[in-house]
Amino acid sequence: MNYSIVKRTIGALLIFESIFFLVPLITAIIYWETAFFAFLVSICICVGLGGLCLLGKNKNPAIYAKEGFVIVALSWIVLSIFGALPFYFSGEIPSFIDALFETVSGFTTTGATILPNGEAIESLPKSLLMWRSFTHWIGGMGVLVFIMAFLPLSGAKNMHMMKAESPGPTVGKLVPKVKETAKILYIIYGLMTLAQLILMLIGGMPLFDAVTTAFATAGTGGFSINADSIARYSSYIQIVVTVFMLLFSINFNAYYLIGKGRWKEILTTEIKAFLVIVVSAIALITANLLLTNVADYGYSFGEALKHTAFTVASIISTTGFSTENFDLWPSFSKTILVLLMFIGACAGSTGGGIKVSRAVMLSKGASHEVGRILHPNKVKKITMDKRVVEHEVVRSLNAYIIAYILICIVSVLLISLEGYDMTTNFTSVAATLNNVGPGLSLVGPTGSFAFFSDFSKIVYIFDMLAGRLEIFPMLVLFAPATWRK
Amino acid sequence: MNYSIVKRTIGALLIFESIFFLVPLITAIIYWETAFFAFLVSICICVGLGGLCLLGKNKNPAIYAKEGFVIVALSWIVLSIFGALPFYFSGEIPSFIDALFETVSGFTTTGATILPNGEAIESLPKSLLMWRSFTHWIGGMGVLVFIMAFLPLSGAKNMHMMKAESPGPTVGKLVPKVKETAKILYIIYGLMTLAQLILMLIGGMPLFDAVTTAFATAGTGGFSINADSIARYSSYIQIVVTVFMLLFSINFNAYYLIGKGRWKEILTTEIKAFLVIVVSAIALITANLLLTNVADYGYSFGEALKHTAFTVASIISTTGFSTENFDLWPSFSKTILVLLMFIGACAGSTGGGIKVSRAVMLSKGASHEVGRILHPNKVKKITMDKRVVEHEVVRSLNAYIIAYILICIVSVLLISLEGYDMTTNFTSVAATLNNVGPGLSLVGPTGSFAFFSDFSKIVYIFDMLAGRLEIFPMLVLFAPATWRK
Repeated sequence: MNYSIVKRTIGALLIFESIFFLVPLITAIIYWETAFFAFLVSICICVGLGGLCLLGKNKNPAIYAKEGFVIVALSWIVLSIFGALPFYFSGEIPSFIDALFETVSGFTTTGATILPNGEAIESLPKSLLMWRSFTHWIGGMGVLVFIMAFLPLSGAKNMHMMKAESPGPTVGKLVPKVKETAKILYIIYGLMTLAQLILMLIGGMPLFDAVTTAFATAGTGGFSINADSIARYSSYIQIVVTVFMLLFSINFNAYYLIGKGRWKEILTTEIKAFLVIVVSAIALITANLLLTNVADYGYSFGEALKHTAFTVASIISTTGFSTENFDLWPSFSKTILVLLMFIGACAGSTGGGIKVSRAVMLSKGASHEVGRILHPNKVKKITMDKRVVEHEVVRSLNAYIIAYILICIVSVLLISLEGYDMTTNFTSVAATLNNVGPGLSLVGPTGSFAFFSDFSKIVYIFDMLAGRLEIFPMLVLFAPATWRK
Repeated sequence: MNYSIVKRTIGALLIFESIFFLVPLITAIIYWETAFFAFLVSICICVGLGGLCLLGKNKNPAIYAKEGFVIVALSWIVLSIFGALPFYFSGEIPSFIDALFETVSGFTTTGATILPNGEAIESLPKSLLMWRSFTHWIGGMGVLVFIMAFLPLSGAKNMHMMKAESPGPTVGKLVPKVKETAKILYIIYGLMTLAQLILMLIGGMPLFDAVTTAFATAGTGGFSINADSIARYSSYIQIVVTVFMLLFSINFNAYYLIGKGRWKEILTTEIKAFLVIVVSAIALITANLLLTNVADYGYSFGEALKHTAFTVASIISTTGFSTENFDLWPSFSKTILVLLMFIGACAGSTGGGIKVSRAVMLSKGASHEVGRILHPNKVKKITMDKRVVEHEVVRSLNAYIIAYILICIVSVLLISLEGYDMTTNFTSVAATLNNVGPGLSLVGPTGSFAFFSDFSKIVYIFDMLAGRLEIFPMLVLFAPATWRK
């Protein structure tokens, strides 16, 4: 293990975190909040510790896959621990585990909260609300990708880190240089966030609401500053949010290609599949809502379509905003939503879940097996966009899915020790591991994660990180073999 | 497609089914039941149609993988349709879909019932109860394996059929000839069933109860002739059943090796893993039952251990007998049980589920991936019992798991259209696809599948067959490509 490079990267990260803190710090000044001091102290700690880590010369710039995975996992944990300080220091979230949960939920763009009810959310100082939403934006595109884009990491091989932090089975570099790719991604990300912000301001949304909502949508996070999430805003705002949740769950390559005028290339197998899934889910749930005799609802076709489109976009993008309490919807609709949680967004987006491209490759693998029985002598390989998927990728994908299932099973088992109902246990794990936020039953859109024990919260913290980093960085970090000489 | 060989095999199967009917027919004579006529008519139909299918010369004895899979899937469907006739003709189960469900549940050794309550089960004529239990015994080891063992299938390549019908990722032939292997397996099966029967008779169990229970245990089926399953019998009987449920879920190779005196070879990776899982599950659930404050139970340590051992054996063997209503147990215990449903028994046993060897291979695959990140240049292959698992097997295994998950998802979606709770929907599919029988909530040990619509019952029928035949035969049968010229 190259400890020197690990220490230096963590150091740079802490310095960056202190810069991130300036956003809520300025908010605290504007609104004249005492939380200002909590941010100030946090900044001092990050600068101090970060500086210490950066002291001395870099002896060995080599980053292999092992170091890449360890740095990524460790960075996210460190980022979350220090990011939790303002919540803790301000006294607004008195339990450190709770503060950590909230911060991990922010950075991993999960959006699950330990704030027990709407009142607790709305009474939070605006600077802390801003920090909560801003963590989504930072975490969405990946913080190490950000550092790579704007900091010369002294010749380190950045590809391994980008591989470990970026969502999806393969990393597509837009341009030959990793650093340039990272920069382009962040520029697209910034411009799209700005576009959403402007569209919402045009709709008459207050500036603070618009900024926090744009951050949370762009990162596909889901923290809201309101008790009722997005329900209180106009239909126009809700439709803007729906569209942008979907836009942020599409592979960012598409936007790069659009920028280059290469419109014909954007409809990849993955994006086509994504659109098919979204449209079918909206059609099925709308039909289910209109045809089922649910006494509490009397949706018109338009309302049903609007709420369904919003909810489907929110869940498949793994954002987790809500306009309706979908926990009250009929079983069939809820089952589709749980399924969408696992499928998740496209690779190379800010969304979580297993990713559409993985789901497509896996289905192709299974259907090829039937083909092999029928024609044993015809060798047919899995292709995506007319390119053969390499054996390495398929193998790694299969291992990923099994690891995903195993983590899901172990988590549900550990959570079930608390004795809640199985829907709560299963969907709470699904909602955290896939970085969605709300689940069903006790953790539905009107619920929270407040009532769980600290032990369960630590399980969820692990799941959120494992989900965001796509399992292996966390497994490598905790594998004894990594630390053996 | 070689239609001639398909027709001839189905013909032979129907003749065999008419022979199987003799067991309940004799029971009907002994108890002087009018169901006698239902069996007599069924026999005539099977002999007639079977004879017609066998007319004419066999033109083409070639069976390729495609034919093997189609024959197996079709045989099980035909077997079930004709096996349902006595239930229907006797008027005891007036709906044919219900009769078919019950028969498929029997042959696939699921043990889920559409008989709405205990009264309906106990009032069934003894000959029909005998047929229900006997279908478990026939289905447990596989009916085509049986035909292969005792009928010369005119030089057909039987290996493909055995592969499609036998549970597990690979087929281990005990002796070079498939036919001899099949014979040995059935002899072991018969002797072990006899051993259990004798041990239960020694414990004072009535003969009829003992025979039906032995059939249902040997096939790891789970149909009982009582409303309260095995609860009414003595602890001795319950312990005998516990032990035999476990014995029947171990790879039958072990018994062949014991017969040959090769004791040292029986502890394979799979059997070791199976024992570890069983012991851990019993320990965890016993602890959970004793430590959780469940008002309704006041288990002593001994009782808790006995009921837990019985339930764990019943679920992991996918039998589905019960001595306690485990649906009332705490969440943690129930979650373990659902997990055991999916893991299932060992390959090459009469049990269902994904099989322990597959679970072991999959976990190894995932942990190897972490090893690959740490040491990218070390090529490490998955091994079982010190032998490298071939790439073909791994690929097919991964496809199998994905197909399994997909069928599970689609089934849960279809069942959820009825609007029951998610635990019912999910565990009912888990219980049928894994051939267990009871699930949780509405389909718990005291429930039944009676209240579902015919549409849902057809979904379960598909799942039971897909689970028993390990997915691919059913997929091949229904794949349009199979029937294209």
